[in-house]
Amino acid sequence: MLIVGSPVSPYVRKILAILHLKNIDYELDPITPFYGNDEFSELSPLRRIPVLIDGDLVVNDSTVIAEYLDEAYPEVPVLPKGARQRAQARWIEEYADSRLGDLCIWGLFFPKIVAPFVFRRTPDEEAIAKVTDTELPIALDWLEARAPAKGFLFGDMVSVADLATACPLRNAAIAGWTPGPARWPKVAAWLARIAAQPCYARTIDFEPAILATRPEGRRAALEAVGVKVAETSFGTDDPRASIMLR
Amino acid sequence: MLIVGSPVSPYVRKILAILHLKNIDYELDPITPFYGNDEFSELSPLRRIPVLIDGDLVVNDSTVIAEYLDEAYPEVPVLPKGARQRAQARWIEEYADSRLGDLCIWGLFFPKIVAPFVFRRTPDEEAIAKVTDTELPIALDWLEARAPAKGFLFGDMVSVADLATACPLRNAAIAGWTPGPARWPKVAAWLARIAAQPCYARTIDFEPAILATRPEGRRAALEAVGVKVAETSFGTDDPRASIMLR
Repeated sequence: MLIVGSPVSPYVRKILAILHLKNIDYELDPITPFYGNDEFSELSPLRRIPVLIDGDLVVNDSTVIAEYLDEAYPEVPVLPKGARQRAQARWIEEYADSRLGDLCIWGLFFPKIVAPFVFRRTPDEEAIAKVTDTELPIALDWLEARAPAKGFLFGDMVSVADLATACPLRNAAIAGWTPGPARWPKVAAWLARIAAQPCYARTIDFEPAILATRPEGRRAALEAVGVKVAETSFGTDDPRASIMLR
Repeated sequence: MLIVGSPVSPYVRKILAILHLKNIDYELDPITPFYGNDEFSELSPLRRIPVLIDGDLVVNDSTVIAEYLDEAYPEVPVLPKGARQRAQARWIEEYADSRLGDLCIWGLFFPKIVAPFVFRRTPDEEAIAKVTDTELPIALDWLEARAPAKGFLFGDMVSVADLATACPLRNAAIAGWTPGPARWPKVAAWLARIAAQPCYARTIDFEPAILATRPEGRRAALEAVGVKVAETSFGTDDPRASIMLR
């Protein structure tokens, strides 16, 4: 099984955590976020990461990939039982992928981390303040009303909804914003419980290999933390070849 | 079961077609697209339609609603069997919801139908030409390579992927653009087969009640074509209360 996509994408991080939780062996093609070659367009017509390649099957979109992994490898499930609980899990995943993704990636991580270093663009501090002072607090209030007092959203199991929520907030944390425990005590404690799960913690170990390593050293750095790096690459250094994150 | 959302939204149309196919009784709150009151925000934090309310369960996002209906009412399925085929169906649904939705709704239906009549805005003909002459043809070429030569994407069953593809293209048709059978023969024939399905054809019968009827007459016009219109309403006429379509 091959995963194409950088582990600093929240959507890739979600899928890697699920693979770890399900104990599925995989190779990673850690293409630079925002770049992909022409073959990548064939693979991913919306130019999103991650892409999963399982034999001759190509699966796009992290939500679809998570559903596929849960059906093809059901031993450790990431969706709860029962149509109603599954609908709630899927909706919280969608909320996190869409709303938290927009705010944490396009509102914070991209302007504060990617744009200055990759594109030499100065961040728009007013736009960033709107995200941290108004928009993220509204989203976090919504989450606080739904956060579990103990364990995870659906009891003891770590679900795709728990992981999907933690992953974009990790990118916000890299960009310097975390939900304060005074205003959001249940969310802060819940995120800490998710962060302590080995399936998720392992994805955090991959980050320095991308964020603190020059492009030519990244594959070796990933191998040094135990990642099986794919020989093939769908990446490119052509900055015109921008890809979406999800 | 209550569905909140206008039947001219492709995401509402998809869910109504699934309800018809599964023979599930429902009431419709046909709130005007782009408008919703404060209670609607409580119901749908991303202000998207449709919302499904089944007893005390509220389900947001048309993809999540379709999954819920397929699990809670499995007799007539809209997802095929097998993890691989299900992954393909979900991905084509996502492609249609995202890419065709963007092009057909925000690229054509909104600027050509909604904006001139509701907001008195003149369409940007250059932007529309880019959609009809370049972007939609690329998407249709992608679909032509995947369109079934007979029946539907997964044999004789009408799947959520078939319906999700037809629904935004219906909005493009209302805005004057249809895929020509000379360039896209398989897609054109496939869309005609979907259009002939009673579950889908019935949603088309609802359109004049919205598109050719003044707001105050819409509920009566929907009832005249057999829709059970809900007594409650999450709609508003306040133009500041804009909602997303999906």
